[in-house]
Amino acid sequence: MSQVKKLLALGLAIATVAIATPALAEEAAKAAPKADPAFLFNTLLFLIGGILVVWMAAGFAMLEAGMVQTKNVSMQCTKNIALYSIAGLVFWLVGYNVMYEGVDGGYIGTFLPKDIPVPDKDTANAYSASSDWFFQMAFCATAASIVSGTLAERIKLWPFLLFVAVLCGIIYPIVGAWTWGAGFLNKMGFLDFAGSSIVHSTGGWAALAGALILGARSAKFHDGTITPLPGSNMPLATLGTFILWLGWFGFNGASQLAFATNIDASAVSNIFVNTNLAAAAGVVVAIVLSQLLYGKVDLTFALNGALAGLVAITAEPLTPSPAMAIAIGAIGGAIVVFTVPLLDKLRIDDVVGAIPVHLFAGIWGTMAVPLTNSDASFATQAIGVGAIGAMVFTVSLVLWVILKFTIGIRCTPEQEQKGLDITEIGLEAYPEFK
Amino acid sequence: MSQVKKLLALGLAIATVAIATPALAEEAAKAAPKADPAFLFNTLLFLIGGILVVWMAAGFAMLEAGMVQTKNVSMQCTKNIALYSIAGLVFWLVGYNVMYEGVDGGYIGTFLPKDIPVPDKDTANAYSASSDWFFQMAFCATAASIVSGTLAERIKLWPFLLFVAVLCGIIYPIVGAWTWGAGFLNKMGFLDFAGSSIVHSTGGWAALAGALILGARSAKFHDGTITPLPGSNMPLATLGTFILWLGWFGFNGASQLAFATNIDASAVSNIFVNTNLAAAAGVVVAIVLSQLLYGKVDLTFALNGALAGLVAITAEPLTPSPAMAIAIGAIGGAIVVFTVPLLDKLRIDDVVGAIPVHLFAGIWGTMAVPLTNSDASFATQAIGVGAIGAMVFTVSLVLWVILKFTIGIRCTPEQEQKGLDITEIGLEAYPEFK
Amino acid sequence: MSQVKKLLALGLAIATVAIATPALAEEAAKAAPKADPAFLFNTLLFLIGGILVVWMAAGFAMLEAGMVQTKNVSMQCTKNIALYSIAGLVFWLVGYNVMYEGVDGGYIGTFLPKDIPVPDKDTANAYSASSDWFFQMAFCATAASIVSGTLAERIKLWPFLLFVAVLCGIIYPIVGAWTWGAGFLNKMGFLDFAGSSIVHSTGGWAALAGALILGARSAKFHDGTITPLPGSNMPLATLGTFILWLGWFGFNGASQLAFATNIDASAVSNIFVNTNLAAAAGVVVAIVLSQLLYGKVDLTFALNGALAGLVAITAEPLTPSPAMAIAIGAIGGAIVVFTVPLLDKLRIDDVVGAIPVHLFAGIWGTMAVPLTNSDASFATQAIGVGAIGAMVFTVSLVLWVILKFTIGIRCTPEQEQKGLDITEIGLEAYPEFK
Repeated sequence: MSQVKKLLALGLAIATVAIATPALAEEAAKAAPKADPAFLFNTLLFLIGGILVVWMAAGFAMLEAGMVQTKNVSMQCTKNIALYSIAGLVFWLVGYNVMYEGVDGGYIGTFLPKDIPVPDKDTANAYSASSDWFFQMAFCATAASIVSGTLAERIKLWPFLLFVAVLCGIIYPIVGAWTWGAGFLNKMGFLDFAGSSIVHSTGGWAALAGALILGARSAKFHDGTITPLPGSNMPLATLGTFILWLGWFGFNGASQLAFATNIDASAVSNIFVNTNLAAAAGVVVAIVLSQLLYGKVDLTFALNGALAGLVAITAEPLTPSPAMAIAIGAIGGAIVVFTVPLLDKLRIDDVVGAIPVHLFAGIWGTMAVPLTNSDASFATQAIGVGAIGAMVFTVSLVLWVILKFTIGIRCTPEQEQKGLDITEIGLEAYPEFK
Repeated sequence: MSQVKKLLALGLAIATVAIATPALAEEAAKAAPKADPAFLFNTLLFLIGGILVVWMAAGFAMLEAGMVQTKNVSMQCTKNIALYSIAGLVFWLVGYNVMYEGVDGGYIGTFLPKDIPVPDKDTANAYSASSDWFFQMAFCATAASIVSGTLAERIKLWPFLLFVAVLCGIIYPIVGAWTWGAGFLNKMGFLDFAGSSIVHSTGGWAALAGALILGARSAKFHDGTITPLPGSNMPLATLGTFILWLGWFGFNGASQLAFATNIDASAVSNIFVNTNLAAAAGVVVAIVLSQLLYGKVDLTFALNGALAGLVAITAEPLTPSPAMAIAIGAIGGAIVVFTVPLLDKLRIDDVVGAIPVHLFAGIWGTMAVPLTNSDASFATQAIGVGAIGAMVFTVSLVLWVILKFTIGIRCTPEQEQKGLDITEIGLEAYPEFK
Repeated sequence: MSQVKKLLALGLAIATVAIATPALAEEAAKAAPKADPAFLFNTLLFLIGGILVVWMAAGFAMLEAGMVQTKNVSMQCTKNIALYSIAGLVFWLVGYNVMYEGVDGGYIGTFLPKDIPVPDKDTANAYSASSDWFFQMAFCATAASIVSGTLAERIKLWPFLLFVAVLCGIIYPIVGAWTWGAGFLNKMGFLDFAGSSIVHSTGGWAALAGALILGARSAKFHDGTITPLPGSNMPLATLGTFILWLGWFGFNGASQLAFATNIDASAVSNIFVNTNLAAAAGVVVAIVLSQLLYGKVDLTFALNGALAGLVAITAEPLTPSPAMAIAIGAIGGAIVVFTVPLLDKLRIDDVVGAIPVHLFAGIWGTMAVPLTNSDASFATQAIGVGAIGAMVFTVSLVLWVILKFTIGIRCTPEQEQKGLDITEIGLEAYPEFK
């Protein structure tokens, strides 16, 4: 029996090492097709994670469709499916290459479409290159979705889509090149695990620049009074939030980028736990605070509290203990409750609260990384937040100004009053409900 | 050639044994990071299954948002996202430890937060401990969602959330400790594969106790007449049902708890097939019966028929043949059609039909286990149903009474008439649709 | 060190071959339960793919619920959950056997329910037989969903469900037997990777036959004028489209049927990329064309453009380069914009545009296979399209005629005017919104 056990142990040793060292596989027998478990597990992680992040596009669409007025719902749906489509196309055309080639200074690499490897060339990597492309593409689309929510109900369709093309083809990829593409922020030691700054604050800065150039909805601010323009469909907004929460398991979990060793799989699992606890804490803090401050629980604070918790934990979902994840998410939720009114005071019109959720909670999450990860420093994190913010905000501002003074970005007051569904889309969202 | 074949067979034998005996891995080479396929597959099963069960929280939210009147939809959305959040937090704080530590008599173990293992400690298990926590947490939230539906349209928010905290932190984990935590019901041989009784009847008993203490909606029962209060959004309720159906593949499938051997993977596959057939049979029986009994097909019966079929097969989704799975689900569907009117006659107001679906079909499913699994006996199953019912119903009843006579659980008649969206949430769900 | 490397290489060689040749596993050690990574990965692919395709049933339900008028929404929800249920039951009862047994001439095999293998018999395959059944069942349901959309708002419930039973139990499985079941089209070299013709055109032909026999909605065509009957809920239709898009990753990706080698995993990844790019191109072409042709962007064209892009790439999602995938999807999107008005001119009433999307784009996708796959020929593809079309259209036509002259298929004009929710279902979808 002990003889058998020794043989088993030997076999296991060989197999374990074999499975864990895919790079040596080229020396293996050529007869059978290569079947490297590490390659398979990693690729599977990217594909499942990618599907979940793609699903977030639907989440943003539902959240925004629920948070705008009835007369602008078809427009918001159109913008969301179009922006996801355009993001994918331009990320294929230029974005992926900008992000991962010639990245040193974050400048643009080759504009030629990257040759997505055919299967039988795909042997030297730890995962399928296409699965990585798919996952990264979905991230890129997320940044664009954020802008869509803030600028709803008064922006014209085509200039918005043009902005999306530049954001997803150039701006976001440059930020990505600086960090995940091994550019200067990466070399400085800036840490942003799944993109609190790289994805969410990028979207938030672009949205803020747009909100400033575009101006508020005509009905919103008058003579010191703020007119609430309540969302038309709260269960849709709730559904959108649940979809985003679900998608975030892919967003953060698959950003571990590997599922081939026990440590990687445990890391992904811990990320799931922390991601969920941070979101939960964001909800609870938001409803408690809204009860205390306003005497009633505000559903939109609950929803945005969840999202802010998620954004906050995204910069570092692995190293925090569960208790720290709860704290990070809770502060995210509090940020929403306190900064949504602040934007109103500043007369910045953010229809869905995307700037507090994605920009402010994103900055918080990025700055919180050194609290649990000793590889990060507050100074470097601040430099990263500042560099990304300065570049994205400035370029976006210039782009919005150019668009404003060329093709124009804003609907006429008449169009705005009638609603964009009739004037730009020609299709009411709920033709029988009014 | 035969020489090569022999070598292949030897290599295969070694590799197969190696992969199948992860426990021996500690003797393996220390050079490479550990990559145990069994660990990876099992962890992946928990993570994917967990995501699907988390998704069920969205399903309950949509089902309930669709089944209540317009004036209470924001409240129902708030309750659902809040209960899922609270469930996760208390299950981390106490629930998981109550369920899996010091379980012998089902009493409470340590209240200290369980130390979720960091990756590099995670070597001795067959799966990541965090992935298991994530999966179990999602189950816990399901039980709370059931209560939410029954008590809709007249319960106040905060006492409901307090009840949820106790249900998820203590009541459900004690039931879990008795069974999945290796407590006395487990030792007796009580079998409930994925929780027809442990999860669904637990939610159902808690809901029944609440319905009795809380009373019916003011507009529901008057002088022997029953006023139907139809749900406000049938496609949302349908969407919720589809989400729940989808999530149930994770609920039942991942309850196999392993995906590391061919037998386990085949078992998960068979569970998928049986789960789907049982739900399908529940739908068909519900629509046929509603046509025969009432002359029209009732969509809510179709939806609840699907859910009852799913609840019924949950106690044993593996051992039944497909034909038996169809029979078990079909009876679940019939239970809904016959017991929804029964509750009305008893003047028990269950807004979404959660008691027939989760309690009655859950009991049926639990009692049906011995029909296909010879390890179960009707007597033991009855003891389990009785013990769980007695404990959950009694503790819940006491808790509801305490809440009633302390902070109060019921809205005023004026609040109920105006709708809880305005009076408790301050946000109408569809402000433009009325 | 090089000695160690050699040992590693040997171990890796053995393990790689071992993993890649599961057929030899029977000679392996009997002591441990079998754990064949290829079996596990393949089964996982079918299960995840199957879940995604099941999710498409919810997508069709939401798309159709959003595209019909308020008065017919409950009916549409009922039809969708019922058809998915019936599809599963009849595919178990007969369909799977028709499709995969005695397939030579495509005739019906045994009507006995296939014995879904219990786990311990499941040793000789490359995947769990049940996981394959689950995946194929979900495909079958898809074909039925297509019919539901076209015939909405005037067909009676029960004859529709009878048709679904025959479509899923016999018609679709015969088409499947001809192709994926190794029948005559397969032997001729007809290629349809994931079913542009086999699934989508089959549904489209059955829908076309039904539309011809059933006639248009009473309010649609009068004296040369076409009355638009706009859908009642655009965000639901948008959600349905996003769900379908998501599900399509399973539809096309898991149709690779294997995830056990690096080549298979890379193929699935490339399929994901191509599927996404084709859909994105369909959207962009549809919105650009609708802007150019009609001066406004039409959301329904955007949604159907996505779906047409997806249908078009389904016949061959693997061999096209990304640029070719974009071209194939773009033409799919253009087909929608040009053929939706064509059907109106022909007085064929297709409520959701399913015939352009699933039939016309399906034919396009099938004929485009030889553009990128040299194993296909235009002649053989044309024969396949023709054979499938002739059989499905003819049998469907006969069946619709039989149903028309026996139990009747069409609601009365009064029922149609009142809406099917009141007259057939007895439950309004939005009782408070009108």
